[in-house]
Amino acid sequence: MPTPEQWKLWRQKRSWYERNSSRSRSRRLDRHAAEGGFFVRRPHEGEMLDGLDEGRVSVGEGTLFEPGCWVTLGPRAEIRIGEGCFLNRNVMLASVELIEIGDHTMFANGCVVGDGEHRYDDPEVPITWQGFKPRGPVRIGSNCWLGVNCVITGGVTIGDRAVVGANSVVTEDVPAGTIAVGAPAKIIREIDFKGSGSGN
Amino acid sequence: MPTPEQWKLWRQKRSWYERNSSRSRSRRLDRHAAEGGFFVRRPHEGEMLDGLDEGRVSVGEGTLFEPGCWVTLGPRAEIRIGEGCFLNRNVMLASVELIEIGDHTMFANGCVVGDGEHRYDDPEVPITWQGFKPRGPVRIGSNCWLGVNCVITGGVTIGDRAVVGANSVVTEDVPAGTIAVGAPAKIIREIDFKGSGSGN
Amino acid sequence: MPTPEQWKLWRQKRSWYERNSSRSRSRRLDRHAAEGGFFVRRPHEGEMLDGLDEGRVSVGEGTLFEPGCWVTLGPRAEIRIGEGCFLNRNVMLASVELIEIGDHTMFANGCVVGDGEHRYDDPEVPITWQGFKPRGPVRIGSNCWLGVNCVITGGVTIGDRAVVGANSVVTEDVPAGTIAVGAPAKIIREIDFKGSGSGN
Repeated sequence: MPTPEQWKLWRQKRSWYERNSSRSRSRRLDRHAAEGGFFVRRPHEGEMLDGLDEGRVSVGEGTLFEPGCWVTLGPRAEIRIGEGCFLNRNVMLASVELIEIGDHTMFANGCVVGDGEHRYDDPEVPITWQGFKPRGPVRIGSNCWLGVNCVITGGVTIGDRAVVGANSVVTEDVPAGTIAVGAPAKIIREIDFKGSGSGN
Repeated sequence: MPTPEQWKLWRQKRSWYERNSSRSRSRRLDRHAAEGGFFVRRPHEGEMLDGLDEGRVSVGEGTLFEPGCWVTLGPRAEIRIGEGCFLNRNVMLASVELIEIGDHTMFANGCVVGDGEHRYDDPEVPITWQGFKPRGPVRIGSNCWLGVNCVITGGVTIGDRAVVGANSVVTEDVPAGTIAVGAPAKIIREIDFKGSGSGN
Repeated sequence: MPTPEQWKLWRQKRSWYERNSSRSRSRRLDRHAAEGGFFVRRPHEGEMLDGLDEGRVSVGEGTLFEPGCWVTLGPRAEIRIGEGCFLNRNVMLASVELIEIGDHTMFANGCVVGDGEHRYDDPEVPITWQGFKPRGPVRIGSNCWLGVNCVITGGVTIGDRAVVGANSVVTEDVPAGTIAVGAPAKIIREIDFKGSGSGN
């Protein structure tokens, strides 16, 4: 049987890990959403509420977070999301510096965008205590479509109306109007926009 | 503070996005499941209930949907799922025309099957408003095993007793009794069925 | 309308599939967690409680299971997890024999570790009834970092302080202090540990 001290520690962990389920935090997040015209389905993980309170997170009108999204950011990091975006189930945004997303961009289930990475190069310290190092801001344009389980790493810029294939890992820039697939992702072609003179 | 109009819009969104949690829709889905001998764990997203009501979705006896599955279909689309299938956590089926799945087929966590794709070729309109275009029916046979996070795209036929490796993206047909892996998935070998004369 | 017999079967399935939500099982799992100094967020799937009761699962102090983890093990299988590990959202561990994980190892969202695979080589029997065959224990060292959606298959050993890239499928050993990426995963370089004389 756990000791009273063990239960006390367990309860402290529970209130920290489940903080976003508290009535007061939940209501505050909905207030931001109602005011900004966006919507956050639950469960929702991370520090989006704190970032909204402090002005380090902004979310445009009409943007939707499906259940299971996890938005996390370091103490000085920013996340800027435009209007009319869709973040489907289990999408994660993890910012140590800056993640910028334009308008009407769609993230399929399970996409992960992170502008930093865990440090792992100190052989004496547990990796979980080494913190994150920034790899440069991530900028994703407007009207992009990121397929299922895409991973976008630090320092990457994705141009407007680009498409990224499912299960890709994007480690280099993707120009506007192109399609990239694979791990690491490579550009496979330009999109033939209707009426652009270049295609059907 | 949000205005009363902003809260009104927020509440309208909530009732739409959370419609599947309503007592009445939830009970109706369970009624279909009890009658058909299948089971749908919650949360469950999408329009499966509507499809079952209208006869455009059918699910065989013994089939199980684990939590987080998302079954969505367009206004005339169909989804036919056989008996004894397993759809593990966070599997998504998205039909604009037809998805057919045989009996005893297993989908590991996070698989996504879609017979259409978002249109993205109009440079003047937000991508989120361009709708879907069909890429041809998806037909998956009986006794298939689809590994974790497989993506099956439109127009693909997967034969009986085929196996698809984890994190694959299947864009071409997979013949019966073969193993395909990769993104895009390639056939790596035929299965040596016991007693088939071709193997152990 | 379902018959009373159909509802009875439906309710039997519900109590089996939702057993981990029962007050008594949930409380017993929390008791193990409080006593061992680890934490299990909900929902949590599988047989971890049974394995802890029987001593076939052990979890070190400070280890955290984020929501949606699924820990499943066969009747004689073992799972040993060290101290201070992080298993992020939707991580799955499936043991038919043995999965061993060291201390301070991090699994990003959606990783799947399995030491067996579904049998699929009997052409006469539904694949879902063919059971699992062991492919050898999986041993993952201490201070490893496994990226988003990594899959680790049976018989694989991953050395201490190794890093595996996102969306990788690891089918061969990864030596300590190296970085592996891809599907199947290949070693791309050794880590330059600070102060190790080999790098920055």
